[in-house]
Amino acid sequence: MADNARVLVVGTGAIGSFYGAILSRAGARVDVVSRSEHAQMQEHGVRVDSKELGDLSFRPATVYKDVTEVSTPPDFLVLSVKVLDDLDRAALIRPAVGPDTAIVLIENGIEIEPPIVEAFPDNPLVSCLAFVAASRVGPAHTEHKAYGRLVIGSYPSGVNDAARRFSALLEQGGINAPLSENLVTERWRKAVWNAAFNPVSVIAGGASTKDILGSENEERLLVALMQEVCDVAAAAGHPMPEDLPEKSIVNTHKMPAYHNSMALDYIHGRDMEIEAILGNVIREARRLNIPVPHLETVYGTTKMLQRRIAAKNAEATS
Amino acid sequence: MADNARVLVVGTGAIGSFYGAILSRAGARVDVVSRSEHAQMQEHGVRVDSKELGDLSFRPATVYKDVTEVSTPPDFLVLSVKVLDDLDRAALIRPAVGPDTAIVLIENGIEIEPPIVEAFPDNPLVSCLAFVAASRVGPAHTEHKAYGRLVIGSYPSGVNDAARRFSALLEQGGINAPLSENLVTERWRKAVWNAAFNPVSVIAGGASTKDILGSENEERLLVALMQEVCDVAAAAGHPMPEDLPEKSIVNTHKMPAYHNSMALDYIHGRDMEIEAILGNVIREARRLNIPVPHLETVYGTTKMLQRRIAAKNAEATS
Repeated sequence: MADNARVLVVGTGAIGSFYGAILSRAGARVDVVSRSEHAQMQEHGVRVDSKELGDLSFRPATVYKDVTEVSTPPDFLVLSVKVLDDLDRAALIRPAVGPDTAIVLIENGIEIEPPIVEAFPDNPLVSCLAFVAASRVGPAHTEHKAYGRLVIGSYPSGVNDAARRFSALLEQGGINAPLSENLVTERWRKAVWNAAFNPVSVIAGGASTKDILGSENEERLLVALMQEVCDVAAAAGHPMPEDLPEKSIVNTHKMPAYHNSMALDYIHGRDMEIEAILGNVIREARRLNIPVPHLETVYGTTKMLQRRIAAKNAEATS
Repeated sequence: MADNARVLVVGTGAIGSFYGAILSRAGARVDVVSRSEHAQMQEHGVRVDSKELGDLSFRPATVYKDVTEVSTPPDFLVLSVKVLDDLDRAALIRPAVGPDTAIVLIENGIEIEPPIVEAFPDNPLVSCLAFVAASRVGPAHTEHKAYGRLVIGSYPSGVNDAARRFSALLEQGGINAPLSENLVTERWRKAVWNAAFNPVSVIAGGASTKDILGSENEERLLVALMQEVCDVAAAAGHPMPEDLPEKSIVNTHKMPAYHNSMALDYIHGRDMEIEAILGNVIREARRLNIPVPHLETVYGTTKMLQRRIAAKNAEATS
């Protein structure tokens, strides 16, 4: 029994393409918005290769150049753009949001829901955390490397009907999509790893997990960073297991060498989600009066690096 | 009344070349050791251009390829090599050190004297801090950009005869060379700036002072780093003025944009003096039980970056 849900994917990077493909496979009608790859997607569809799941390529029902072209509001608007300072995500999606549209966030970071909730207080919100290794390998071409699990919930807690229906769709599409009553807690759990490993990977020059592990002295730094995130999470009402930092080091050692999203953005000269992944943790720490000197240091230095890259790029294009 | 002191310069980078030139100008006999630029220096001498002081180029009395070739021990052995983990500086100079040779360190960092004192307990030691902007612009070619002051003292404190004579020589050569009864305190004062600005400049991608200043939020990080160095210095018996961190930011704003030594080493793919400039501060902090989380963070991340560069270089040459 297929769910003929109408889905609009805004943000067709690796994440949006992969989950768009899964939703299409589940029988949903999937439209996408892409300005830069419009012609490519129009002609060839969205290519998604997966070792594990085979060829997931799909043809969107409609490829829009811009959200303003959308005339029929979707049942699910999947927002999978990067969370960046200079992008007003609420304004971006507003033209396509109808009164019954569920807004689905598949995005990284902490406290990324509030601007959407404030802009669309009457729409169901579905907040998701992706555990997936996928990356863009060419125009309209994504490679799915491993994993794929999507943890789904409402915000700030609980599970609404939209979340349930969205989860069912993804399970239908062949991936694990568990519902969580405490999605914000899950975001904090993921932030423990992300807020430590992401900026450090960037500072180390766009390094893989393998590159930055291996020195006991330096691993202590990663533990210290993760412990600070745990301190903030606990103060914010989301206590983590006591051994999570140490355990995360052990588990990361077991994973194949892996470039996290910020490291990939850094390597490819793209904007990095410093604020969503790290800045928002620090703002929570300040609000709750939790000292986070290690986090403040990687935050400050990563910002300097970003500012310097931006200045260089501006120079190169002027 | 010229001092015909016999000087041997070991380490003919920008610092060694500049002060070698000043000593030569003062009438000293200056020999140098250079393996890689031996032929160049033999034929053309050591070129040093200075806007302020004119052409300081000089011809060394002898250019040695190796310290082992030195048969007559000098009055002053000027050691101006970088302080790096894998270089045994005492072993390097041993062949040229006679019973009366004064060993002169013109080197950056904290606690760089002990290995030399231990190896040569009976030789006079002169420890110097250079405040100079000079850089290599080609083989055997240094450009002196500004400043030049050399603060001179004995170790761990006081002023010995060798320090006095060395200071007089440099003053004769035309630069400011004040004696200090508390050179270690001066090293700590310089470390306040160096241990903060040097690693941050590297992390920011080989940035100049101007590049990393300008954001209030990020300047707070530099102040926090400098404050930690002040805390360690005070515990080690070298209290700093309370407003030194804030004042250093103000003063650095007034300076022209400047690449510090570690930033230059980073840009040119050379080994960085992470341990001498930063690691030794952290080891002192651990010994004295002073928490330095900001310093630990820039230390750990700079080490990762260095390790990654080394791995890449090894890959490129293998």
